[in-house]
Amino acid sequence: MTYCVATRLRDGLVFLSDSRTNAGVDQVSTFRKMAIFERPGDRVVVLLSAGNLAITQRVKECLDHGPEGERLWNASRFSEVAEAVGAAIRRVYEHDHKALESFGIDFNCSFLVGGQIAGETPRLFMVYAAGNFIEAQDDGSYFQIGESKYGKPILDRVIEPDLSLRDAAKCLLISMDSTLKSNLSVGLPLDLLIYPANRLAAGQPEVIDDRDAHFQSIRTRWGELLREAFQALPARGD
Amino acid sequence: MTYCVATRLRDGLVFLSDSRTNAGVDQVSTFRKMAIFERPGDRVVVLLSAGNLAITQRVKECLDHGPEGERLWNASRFSEVAEAVGAAIRRVYEHDHKALESFGIDFNCSFLVGGQIAGETPRLFMVYAAGNFIEAQDDGSYFQIGESKYGKPILDRVIEPDLSLRDAAKCLLISMDSTLKSNLSVGLPLDLLIYPANRLAAGQPEVIDDRDAHFQSIRTRWGELLREAFQALPARGD
Repeated sequence: MTYCVATRLRDGLVFLSDSRTNAGVDQVSTFRKMAIFERPGDRVVVLLSAGNLAITQRVKECLDHGPEGERLWNASRFSEVAEAVGAAIRRVYEHDHKALESFGIDFNCSFLVGGQIAGETPRLFMVYAAGNFIEAQDDGSYFQIGESKYGKPILDRVIEPDLSLRDAAKCLLISMDSTLKSNLSVGLPLDLLIYPANRLAAGQPEVIDDRDAHFQSIRTRWGELLREAFQALPARGD
Repeated sequence: MTYCVATRLRDGLVFLSDSRTNAGVDQVSTFRKMAIFERPGDRVVVLLSAGNLAITQRVKECLDHGPEGERLWNASRFSEVAEAVGAAIRRVYEHDHKALESFGIDFNCSFLVGGQIAGETPRLFMVYAAGNFIEAQDDGSYFQIGESKYGKPILDRVIEPDLSLRDAAKCLLISMDSTLKSNLSVGLPLDLLIYPANRLAAGQPEVIDDRDAHFQSIRTRWGELLREAFQALPARGD
């Protein structure tokens, strides 16, 4: 299972992905779910993926080396990038879905793709397995893919248009922590990318593993703070 | 959709259920999900249900008027009560599953059943659609049915064997609030039942609607407390 989350704020975008892939009970392996395409000064495209790893890797391959990759690099609007991702998914579907069906395997994949092309503001899309997509229309919105429910309440409470990128990163990490705590098949290391609007360069995502001091402090302190908040609420009949 | 949760603690049991049933887009109706069977001084059985309402109502009917009800009233151990619920589910399955299948409808139901029979400690079970069941083996454990993921993180943080029943009720109400906030198809009013060990009488569940002052304060204060806890955590790089 996977958990990926991204948010669009007035100041830019923040992306966070886990890296556990659970392929059956005997094989728990680690794969990165975040891919970055950038041409500094011109465009930054960040892709997060969830679902069947054989499918998502092949979609990524299309974007790395296929005609969909050309569309991504030549797009003048970010919606064309989302179209390119959708087209890559549809090509993989055409290639694989019959064989998968004969083994009873769903064509299961979803993607978040966000970033910025020079001349536009930062944008964020969610692309479905059918290749269609939706856009986060307002600052202060977020998208999740994969194991999304455990981590949703904190997002609903905190994400708003004016939240700083650093606070948004903290919120996404808390959301991830809640997911990690409630679902064993989501795992470290994490990839975190903070994209300030108009930088038009992605840089390297921060890799967060179990030695990361900040994430460690979130994991221990957040539980304590939640319990303190819990104590601060009156019980029924107080 | 439904959300029901129950917990077993050293001091007793706490049960909480919502009452929204969403039957298609045009019909959102309110049905109670908590049923109580009691013979004061002898036994208290609390049943929470989730799933297809036509199925869960028919299971309840079996327990009210069928041979499974006799098993419930004659059980000398609580595991026999869970067996009776499972038997009722299996009878409804035999009666209905072919007709449901021909309309492409899953036989979807699940139950929490807990309480106490004189001579035993309080016990809590989850009964599946197949009629099989599991028991909460330790104090400090909980079961959820229905839309369970949004409300799980706070349970994982707070529920422990020595938690008081009033604090457990508060925790379950916060868990419900998180679920209500993230899923529109779970709704008020709620039924809350606190069962102190060895009371062997259930009394009436508290009905919590949108005029309930305590739940209102949870709904507003919990969001504020979460945001304060969020502010208290350092951001990355602080």
